[in-house]
Amino acid sequence: MATLSTIMDTNSFRPEHREMLSDDISRLTDKREKVLGNSYRLFYRNPVHLVKGKGQYLWDASGKKYLDVYNNVASIGHCHPAVIEAVNQQMQQINTHTRYLHERILDYSESLLETVPSEINKAMYMCTGSEANDLAIRVAQAYTGGTGIIVTQEAYHGTSELTSGASPALGTGQALASTTRLVQAPDPYRVKTDNMAKWFANAIQEQIDDMERNGIKFAGFLADSIFSSDGVLPGERGFMQAAIETVHANGGVFIADEVQPGFGRTGDAFWGFARHDLVPDMVTLGKPMGNGIPVSGLLAKNDVLSAFSDHIPYFNTFGGNPVSMAAAQAVLQVIKDEKLQEHSQKVGAKLLNELKHLENQYEVVGDVRGAGLFIGFEFVTNKEDKTPDKSLALDSLEVLRDEGILTSVAGPHGNVLKLRPTLAFQEHDIDWLVSSLEKTIKTLR
Amino acid sequence: MATLSTIMDTNSFRPEHREMLSDDISRLTDKREKVLGNSYRLFYRNPVHLVKGKGQYLWDASGKKYLDVYNNVASIGHCHPAVIEAVNQQMQQINTHTRYLHERILDYSESLLETVPSEINKAMYMCTGSEANDLAIRVAQAYTGGTGIIVTQEAYHGTSELTSGASPALGTGQALASTTRLVQAPDPYRVKTDNMAKWFANAIQEQIDDMERNGIKFAGFLADSIFSSDGVLPGERGFMQAAIETVHANGGVFIADEVQPGFGRTGDAFWGFARHDLVPDMVTLGKPMGNGIPVSGLLAKNDVLSAFSDHIPYFNTFGGNPVSMAAAQAVLQVIKDEKLQEHSQKVGAKLLNELKHLENQYEVVGDVRGAGLFIGFEFVTNKEDKTPDKSLALDSLEVLRDEGILTSVAGPHGNVLKLRPTLAFQEHDIDWLVSSLEKTIKTLR
Repeated sequence: MATLSTIMDTNSFRPEHREMLSDDISRLTDKREKVLGNSYRLFYRNPVHLVKGKGQYLWDASGKKYLDVYNNVASIGHCHPAVIEAVNQQMQQINTHTRYLHERILDYSESLLETVPSEINKAMYMCTGSEANDLAIRVAQAYTGGTGIIVTQEAYHGTSELTSGASPALGTGQALASTTRLVQAPDPYRVKTDNMAKWFANAIQEQIDDMERNGIKFAGFLADSIFSSDGVLPGERGFMQAAIETVHANGGVFIADEVQPGFGRTGDAFWGFARHDLVPDMVTLGKPMGNGIPVSGLLAKNDVLSAFSDHIPYFNTFGGNPVSMAAAQAVLQVIKDEKLQEHSQKVGAKLLNELKHLENQYEVVGDVRGAGLFIGFEFVTNKEDKTPDKSLALDSLEVLRDEGILTSVAGPHGNVLKLRPTLAFQEHDIDWLVSSLEKTIKTLR
Repeated sequence: MATLSTIMDTNSFRPEHREMLSDDISRLTDKREKVLGNSYRLFYRNPVHLVKGKGQYLWDASGKKYLDVYNNVASIGHCHPAVIEAVNQQMQQINTHTRYLHERILDYSESLLETVPSEINKAMYMCTGSEANDLAIRVAQAYTGGTGIIVTQEAYHGTSELTSGASPALGTGQALASTTRLVQAPDPYRVKTDNMAKWFANAIQEQIDDMERNGIKFAGFLADSIFSSDGVLPGERGFMQAAIETVHANGGVFIADEVQPGFGRTGDAFWGFARHDLVPDMVTLGKPMGNGIPVSGLLAKNDVLSAFSDHIPYFNTFGGNPVSMAAAQAVLQVIKDEKLQEHSQKVGAKLLNELKHLENQYEVVGDVRGAGLFIGFEFVTNKEDKTPDKSLALDSLEVLRDEGILTSVAGPHGNVLKLRPTLAFQEHDIDWLVSSLEKTIKTLR
């Protein structure tokens, strides 16, 4: 199955763009080229030099204000005072590792485990989503005795060797593991079926069967339930149930990667998987968990995790340290106190409604879909044949940047704007985003 | 080659110890058992509940004061005000990722690259030492076209799938990769040779030859230059040169893992490898880099790194973010301002000298060696036959804990105390440590 790399192909600064840059920007891009590895890629042909953040907004060095419509890391808002205060207080007391007792990790674990189905009753902590998925795959393999992992066609699950081998979004330069199998994402806009639940379950069964033919024992299915990198595909609530039943019927585990949809983002539920009333075997957490402080986690059913942890030591030096836990606890508390899940649902629905007007009005907007403040906005050359318009999507990023809207693209065709503002995004921000999108369409079509 | 797991076998709390615990401790161990995965292991049969840190000291919930003789994470001292202030200031401004321009990462990279040989001219950032080593192995494999990695017999290089497969210290539960080969560590106390440089180079050549016989192309040698997990083995300055010449002569790369010896720790030089006047192909950084804020790095020769980064995208969401870089910059500045490398050399030499008196005086102290504030203290049943005394080492941890000294063990026999205090350790702390060790020996022998 061919796959495109949206990660490689996203608009990024290249040396030939240098002449269009201001002195400040070119000074920094020159310095980057000198001291950083080539893997570092800057968004935009004309990169942005950010110096300040507050809530849903960012400011560059020239004082220009931006609406952040991409970042789920600063999920409860840039520079949230509750997180700053929690980190500062804890840093003044103690910051050491989990081989000594400390209350923070225990209190946080109790709070966190209350948000998931009761079958999921054990927590572990790392520093990045990659580390969480790397461990989850190892646990899945230990528990099932299998090696085969299924992911979607454009999935991205991490930067480690193991997770890169299950991340087709990295493009053809990065070989997939021989035990990785891909399924097409359940895209209601493009997949021709009147029963998506069954279609998706069948697609998974086909890959399990293919593994079997090749002597690979199935270990599990790893997916975020909104298929972020495949183009933001929330689908109907509950449609994933048949797929997960198929996974379990074949002896595999389901790992819900909540690095993107988790922590209230999708509005309907606190977790992406909960939109489908699923009970995953493991849940991996990352980006929004500490609002920018590096912290990630793995939640699991005890018997699944034990298959690994009874035999193999795992110690993550910084994972679960008091400062990380203080940040994570503050984030969880703010989501509750500020009712950010409900907020995401309400404001997300209003935003989606406004964006639907653009879909109805413009031939180049093929589809708009979302759950809460996580929306995919898909460009096509025309509505009838749904031909993806990647160059329009990439060009639109640049126009939007000039309008002060920061976002990026996703999906196997690179033609879907991934609209994922901080949860501090307010109703009064809708107009800036929607009018900028409309202006962009008018400018470029 | 058989290997023991010091990580698995270190004294750790088990449920059968419960009756000896105070109410406070048993409340927390019960909670841990309920909510955390079994992989979590507590130091000590009677675990320590830490609530406060300052400089070289820690305090538990009962007010008892400890001298931290183990932690190289809080390397410049627990709760150092310069790091707290730098993190707080940056958190109030902005904390976003490396796809936008920010000065912090560039300024820090310039400062950091000044500390390594000029051939090493590119920096990348992650969040943990595991992530740094995972990437370094992948880069080594991309650059050489090989897969074979050599590590020492008791090495520990990380928690990811790839790094665990090159970490024999994890014990027999964790399978080594089929492409991993082990060499005995260059232990001047136990290896019978009058030319350690040649002996070690030969040991590496033997493993490269073994790889060749098995159709495995050699990719590189991964080691920290003080062989921390093998029992803290600094050896003579320069002895590693022949080994690294052998690595290069066979087309491999040398990855210097500085997670333990780096950032001034060994006194003689800022980096462990620099004690041997080596030029590694890659240098991996972790634990002490941010004094507890999760930040790690990979420094590399441009042509080595390019073999990977020209083809494979690598993006670490939290890696190199402004807050991590602010913490790391503060640490580097404090090491310079407080002259902590020179301090480590001076105080480390005095401490080593005092510990040598114990070696001279007691039959059970087989060997004491170190570089700067990184010292191995080896227990044997008697000096003549050098039989490792693991149970004495483990029991001593408990007595030392009661004396307020926190440390742990290392080495393939688990009989070496790893004395690695924060660099805030002062001359006036020597007596507490040495007299506690003497008391421990008298109590237990």
